[in-house]
Amino acid sequence: MSENKILNIGILKNGTIGSSLLLAFLMDERAESTRINVREVTSGAKMHPPEECIETMKKLLEFEPELILMSSPNAALKGPMAAREMAKEANIPTIVISDAPAKKAVDEIKEKNMGYILVNCDSMIGARRPFLDPIEMSCFNSDLLKVLAISGSLQVIAQELNKVIMDMLEGKKPILPQIIIDASRAVQAAKFTNPYAEAKAIAAFELASSVSKVTSRACFVLKEREEYMPLLAAAHEMMRTAALMCDQAREIEKSNDTVIRRPHHAKQHLLTKTKLHEKEA
Amino acid sequence: MSENKILNIGILKNGTIGSSLLLAFLMDERAESTRINVREVTSGAKMHPPEECIETMKKLLEFEPELILMSSPNAALKGPMAAREMAKEANIPTIVISDAPAKKAVDEIKEKNMGYILVNCDSMIGARRPFLDPIEMSCFNSDLLKVLAISGSLQVIAQELNKVIMDMLEGKKPILPQIIIDASRAVQAAKFTNPYAEAKAIAAFELASSVSKVTSRACFVLKEREEYMPLLAAAHEMMRTAALMCDQAREIEKSNDTVIRRPHHAKQHLLTKTKLHEKEA
Amino acid sequence: MSENKILNIGILKNGTIGSSLLLAFLMDERAESTRINVREVTSGAKMHPPEECIETMKKLLEFEPELILMSSPNAALKGPMAAREMAKEANIPTIVISDAPAKKAVDEIKEKNMGYILVNCDSMIGARRPFLDPIEMSCFNSDLLKVLAISGSLQVIAQELNKVIMDMLEGKKPILPQIIIDASRAVQAAKFTNPYAEAKAIAAFELASSVSKVTSRACFVLKEREEYMPLLAAAHEMMRTAALMCDQAREIEKSNDTVIRRPHHAKQHLLTKTKLHEKEA
Amino acid sequence: MSENKILNIGILKNGTIGSSLLLAFLMDERAESTRINVREVTSGAKMHPPEECIETMKKLLEFEPELILMSSPNAALKGPMAAREMAKEANIPTIVISDAPAKKAVDEIKEKNMGYILVNCDSMIGARRPFLDPIEMSCFNSDLLKVLAISGSLQVIAQELNKVIMDMLEGKKPILPQIIIDASRAVQAAKFTNPYAEAKAIAAFELASSVSKVTSRACFVLKEREEYMPLLAAAHEMMRTAALMCDQAREIEKSNDTVIRRPHHAKQHLLTKTKLHEKEA
Amino acid sequence: MSENKILNIGILKNGTIGSSLLLAFLMDERAESTRINVREVTSGAKMHPPEECIETMKKLLEFEPELILMSSPNAALKGPMAAREMAKEANIPTIVISDAPAKKAVDEIKEKNMGYILVNCDSMIGARRPFLDPIEMSCFNSDLLKVLAISGSLQVIAQELNKVIMDMLEGKKPILPQIIIDASRAVQAAKFTNPYAEAKAIAAFELASSVSKVTSRACFVLKEREEYMPLLAAAHEMMRTAALMCDQAREIEKSNDTVIRRPHHAKQHLLTKTKLHEKEA
Amino acid sequence: MSENKILNIGILKNGTIGSSLLLAFLMDERAESTRINVREVTSGAKMHPPEECIETMKKLLEFEPELILMSSPNAALKGPMAAREMAKEANIPTIVISDAPAKKAVDEIKEKNMGYILVNCDSMIGARRPFLDPIEMSCFNSDLLKVLAISGSLQVIAQELNKVIMDMLEGKKPILPQIIIDASRAVQAAKFTNPYAEAKAIAAFELASSVSKVTSRACFVLKEREEYMPLLAAAHEMMRTAALMCDQAREIEKSNDTVIRRPHHAKQHLLTKTKLHEKEA
Repeated sequence: MSENKILNIGILKNGTIGSSLLLAFLMDERAESTRINVREVTSGAKMHPPEECIETMKKLLEFEPELILMSSPNAALKGPMAAREMAKEANIPTIVISDAPAKKAVDEIKEKNMGYILVNCDSMIGARRPFLDPIEMSCFNSDLLKVLAISGSLQVIAQELNKVIMDMLEGKKPILPQIIIDASRAVQAAKFTNPYAEAKAIAAFELASSVSKVTSRACFVLKEREEYMPLLAAAHEMMRTAALMCDQAREIEKSNDTVIRRPHHAKQHLLTKTKLHEKEA
Repeated sequence: MSENKILNIGILKNGTIGSSLLLAFLMDERAESTRINVREVTSGAKMHPPEECIETMKKLLEFEPELILMSSPNAALKGPMAAREMAKEANIPTIVISDAPAKKAVDEIKEKNMGYILVNCDSMIGARRPFLDPIEMSCFNSDLLKVLAISGSLQVIAQELNKVIMDMLEGKKPILPQIIIDASRAVQAAKFTNPYAEAKAIAAFELASSVSKVTSRACFVLKEREEYMPLLAAAHEMMRTAALMCDQAREIEKSNDTVIRRPHHAKQHLLTKTKLHEKEA
Repeated sequence: MSENKILNIGILKNGTIGSSLLLAFLMDERAESTRINVREVTSGAKMHPPEECIETMKKLLEFEPELILMSSPNAALKGPMAAREMAKEANIPTIVISDAPAKKAVDEIKEKNMGYILVNCDSMIGARRPFLDPIEMSCFNSDLLKVLAISGSLQVIAQELNKVIMDMLEGKKPILPQIIIDASRAVQAAKFTNPYAEAKAIAAFELASSVSKVTSRACFVLKEREEYMPLLAAAHEMMRTAALMCDQAREIEKSNDTVIRRPHHAKQHLLTKTKLHEKEA
Repeated sequence: MSENKILNIGILKNGTIGSSLLLAFLMDERAESTRINVREVTSGAKMHPPEECIETMKKLLEFEPELILMSSPNAALKGPMAAREMAKEANIPTIVISDAPAKKAVDEIKEKNMGYILVNCDSMIGARRPFLDPIEMSCFNSDLLKVLAISGSLQVIAQELNKVIMDMLEGKKPILPQIIIDASRAVQAAKFTNPYAEAKAIAAFELASSVSKVTSRACFVLKEREEYMPLLAAAHEMMRTAALMCDQAREIEKSNDTVIRRPHHAKQHLLTKTKLHEKEA
Repeated sequence: MSENKILNIGILKNGTIGSSLLLAFLMDERAESTRINVREVTSGAKMHPPEECIETMKKLLEFEPELILMSSPNAALKGPMAAREMAKEANIPTIVISDAPAKKAVDEIKEKNMGYILVNCDSMIGARRPFLDPIEMSCFNSDLLKVLAISGSLQVIAQELNKVIMDMLEGKKPILPQIIIDASRAVQAAKFTNPYAEAKAIAAFELASSVSKVTSRACFVLKEREEYMPLLAAAHEMMRTAALMCDQAREIEKSNDTVIRRPHHAKQHLLTKTKLHEKEA
Repeated sequence: MSENKILNIGILKNGTIGSSLLLAFLMDERAESTRINVREVTSGAKMHPPEECIETMKKLLEFEPELILMSSPNAALKGPMAAREMAKEANIPTIVISDAPAKKAVDEIKEKNMGYILVNCDSMIGARRPFLDPIEMSCFNSDLLKVLAISGSLQVIAQELNKVIMDMLEGKKPILPQIIIDASRAVQAAKFTNPYAEAKAIAAFELASSVSKVTSRACFVLKEREEYMPLLAAAHEMMRTAALMCDQAREIEKSNDTVIRRPHHAKQHLLTKTKLHEKEA
């Protein structure tokens, strides 16, 4: 297969998780790629009823993608499962990107020979009406995005997707990733030079991961506003603090001029550099 | 028109700006809306060549949306313009959401009787290969999202879109917004109680707005890596600082228990509350 | 029983937890009490073998205490259990103060009609030789103490002990506390006025509580230095961050002049006040 | 004397100072020592009347310690002096650990051939009823402990005690330390690598040392609540700030991976290491 | 005397202290005053030999001032003393503004019927060549200025000078201030609403005041670079921290919208206001 | 010309800018210079009417300076221009130090063969009566001074003035500087070792520079208090944030022990050093 091969990538999003916010941009962060073509269809905030997922997958398939990335919270639910069936039938390599509750679907995903990347710290938001308005929702996502980026979680996703893409561009059959990102996996990808920066990132990852325990109790178990409101507020404080810890970790690396950067070449392979003033290679 | 009216909303995204990251969720932050149905088609990172925009708009129109939201950086470019032509021909009410360079397209948008919301502080990222990798890109977007949320910019978008949606749900002909969001407009929507929190938000808005001046010089004017790298790094420090200032502004409101929250009712109208423990109404 | 009754209180400490660092001072913070007499015997850092606990309890009993407070990490271990037997035989009202692993001993403690206060966030230190020296140990305890104090945990202990003491001073048979302090119980005692300060304290409590999960894995499961060191460093970062969050919570209350203070009267009852310049009553 | 020698160490505490909070743990921070045996008797918050000190010393002597550590605020007062007489008569090597006011007792201590370690920055708490409750007391001690640990003060104590212990384990007659810890002595022991981290620690030490000047005026000179309350609050702000400065000093060393660690070997000698991932030796 | 009276004020500066940096502007902060006319002569950095002071005073007297403000470090030195003689002979009301070492000159100043304002926290800079360059000097002055402003010290100066000026404008014989500004006097003028903000300001004042003790030892006592450098660096850390504490104090007042403002009217009297959006009166 | 040559320098200040606050001390920061003699005359806050400038220049000329430094805001106004005429006629080498609006006078200054240093980030204060009192004025100047010092702006001034002074001391005809200090020029002089510290300084410089845009609108365009007050408060928040960013930049250099120091030798030439404990040379 020649250097002129261009890969058509289809992204399906139903509902949102932090890891999918900028998914297309993890593959082409400066819109310079000459070898991938991305189309994305989403159903906005909704993943219920399953038709939300089915209809959008149907439309996505019309784009005739060669590789499908599917993202949603809790990929074990009926909607995403139905969409996976469709991708399976279409016989298109598919990678599921989801959060910790999706672990329940791992066996089924494996049976379908699909890939998956599940991110432990991509915790559920505090979705109760007296608490969550568009602004609180955006603040939480901002904090979550910071945690995902600096802890190394998004680096894992970027690297794993790029391996698959490079394989396909080279005409190889891709080995789809089957990964659960925990703190250890994340910080390995983040490649901190300073061990205390790494420690802060691990701490932040753990803190962010434990947010779901609090939000799920507040959203699904507690019924009285006076009971769940303190937990919701606490959960978002936890994510905010995790973001600040990650920021500190990166500031340490900046203070040592050891921030690793791995930009995509226009031909899609990843380059790397460390000192700010050095050239990527 | 009855209470059972459900509005089909189509979102087109070509490239990304901070204001569009969570656009669907600004209309339905908890995925509880019973009266809107959202479909979104995007071309990922690309908005050039214009076919990127045209193809995705074509697909979006197949969903038969009753209201179209179009988002891209610099909506004055050819791609978005071509997509607007298609929406115009389809005779569907359309709102353009874009950044400051889109001001050049305002006359044309007005002529098409379309709405627009242009956000001054939604500045361009530092898109040079030796600087911008997926992680730096995500960090910038996290900071930008924080600024947009807390400064009031996203509140303006949420409110303006909701006015249009409510009008259409009630069977009225909507008045499409034609707004440029500057600092003053943003903080009016943010409704700070404390005047120094507001001052910090204004300062952050101005700081974030001036990022574009630095990034555009670094990306388009300067040619040597040693010349543009310091500016790129400085530009992202500016956005990071703007995010921290916004965070401080919100912390002040939290310290006074005066954070205003305006969640959507499942029937789509906006509720409001201020004290954390009070009920939204 | 007259106002002249003085209560002899005996404290046994084997090993240390944050909650016991200043235990005597939670009952008499300014050394002004005229109605309690405290004697404390400790075995320093050791609680193994059980003789450490037995010998020190033997000596403590020679002081003829009327009320015994026993403190150690993991009170379910043999040493503390042996010491409880001795207190039981001596027929002296006894309250066990310990951490989360002590929950395994709750049934046994109840059978002995003893009281207990177990503090969920009083997490285990990162006790590995390449990590923990006297300074790291002191820093961790400083952070832990801050979390315990501001989250309300020490307030629960101070109040529960004082109830028992007041009952005994008044000649009543005391009802010994049987309490597990979780985040909710702690912040109720802390009586934050600002709900976001409370949220930060809850978040800090949860973060501090989850430290044990990390340290126990690092101390008991992982064997290789390169594996456990990052976790130990992360665990102490978590406690440090929890302390900073608590500090912020108290700063908010200070900014509103709503820090509640409940000092002991010299006659042992608790007074209360809120504004800094008002008189305690 | 063989390697099997185990040293019996007796600790007497009357009242509290920051330097004594974790005294036993400065000799055995992970409870792994095989060669020391620690017993501690305390009178809780009280050091007046002298009987508090006498009774506890009497009980401590029953443990037959070979080395005695005595700790209290202002060791020049009658109670500690009486206890020293008892230790002198028992002819047991004794080290007094106290604060700056204890300097008045230095001549007497020297005459008794005892050792002493007086810590200038171990300042008096703001002990007035309208200000000091159990929580404020704990917060102050947390801050003080952080200052003592990071400034190097506790490192001096740990090292000096260990020299004496090692001498005694080896059957040598110990040379008891006679030291007043000022900023210079403290930071020499702290062994900062970065000179600005050291400067912050010196500054924090001086700030913490000057707290006593403010608290003693507020506690002993001023009579009106409106006069002493601002000073008490200011004094605790000073200690809080000193703690934060120390924390920053340690963060700098962490950012350079130059935190020195000197853990005890189980056989009691001190090991040393600097980089987090290197082995102690 | 009519409303048209304009007062000629002469300022002499020899060397610099923080309190004199903006002295003219403490009387006319917006350059709007219609009733004072200011002329200032300085000898730059020098106050030795006395001719520096004498020559500049001579020139100042040529402006025929009706009120003289003299400022220098340590006004007890020969140069300032000589300048005072000249002002005395000229029989012009004179106010000396200086730092703590100037207390030695208080009797002499009183004998001359002059006023004085000595500011305890206006501490000496760390003036050693290996440490102090133009940038370190400017940073120190920036921090010092922040402390002086927020602690209330400059407010005392502004108010006292204005009383004298108003008296003279009204044709009265002015009562010249004879004041030593300590923490208590400063914060009374600062008029904090929140008592913890006030406590932080007191703490900062004390910290800033103690800088001189460290710098004078480093500049005048210690001779070896390795000995005085750590103290100089520590001293400037102390002033930097004092500035940050003051900043926090003001941030608290801002968070409560209680920052008092007392601008001058163009006719020189002081107005006052508190809420940001209210009108000064 | 011999080593004994002493240069008489005259400084004229009318009104104030940040760059002139410590102008004399930028040439002699420790008052140790043996080869310059400085006299300064100022008109305090006023630069209107032109007589303010004329009268003070007249007096300054009486000191017979060999080099004149003139400083004021907006040197293009009539007063400074009139003073320049006088210096021109006196035929004395003159350097104008001013802010960005002075660029309008550059041609005229050049025609007079004078030097100039215009500092872009030396922005106008928020001079409205309901906002600016002596304390707010001092806080702003403190922040501005920090920005000027750390960004490198004052380093440029110190170096350029010293070049001229050294030339004149050596009997050479000086080449007067004609410089506009922008961010790039400033940070070149600041000589940051860490590129992210430099980036923060650039960002701070840009932020400080944009303050003028906000204050000039608030002071000269808007008429209603409710309109200009938020902008004034925002402008001062901008300068405060710029100061904090600069402080962080310097903290990074401190954490790496790479703070460059360039003190003056007593004979006026500049020395240099980097590590805190090394000797200047």
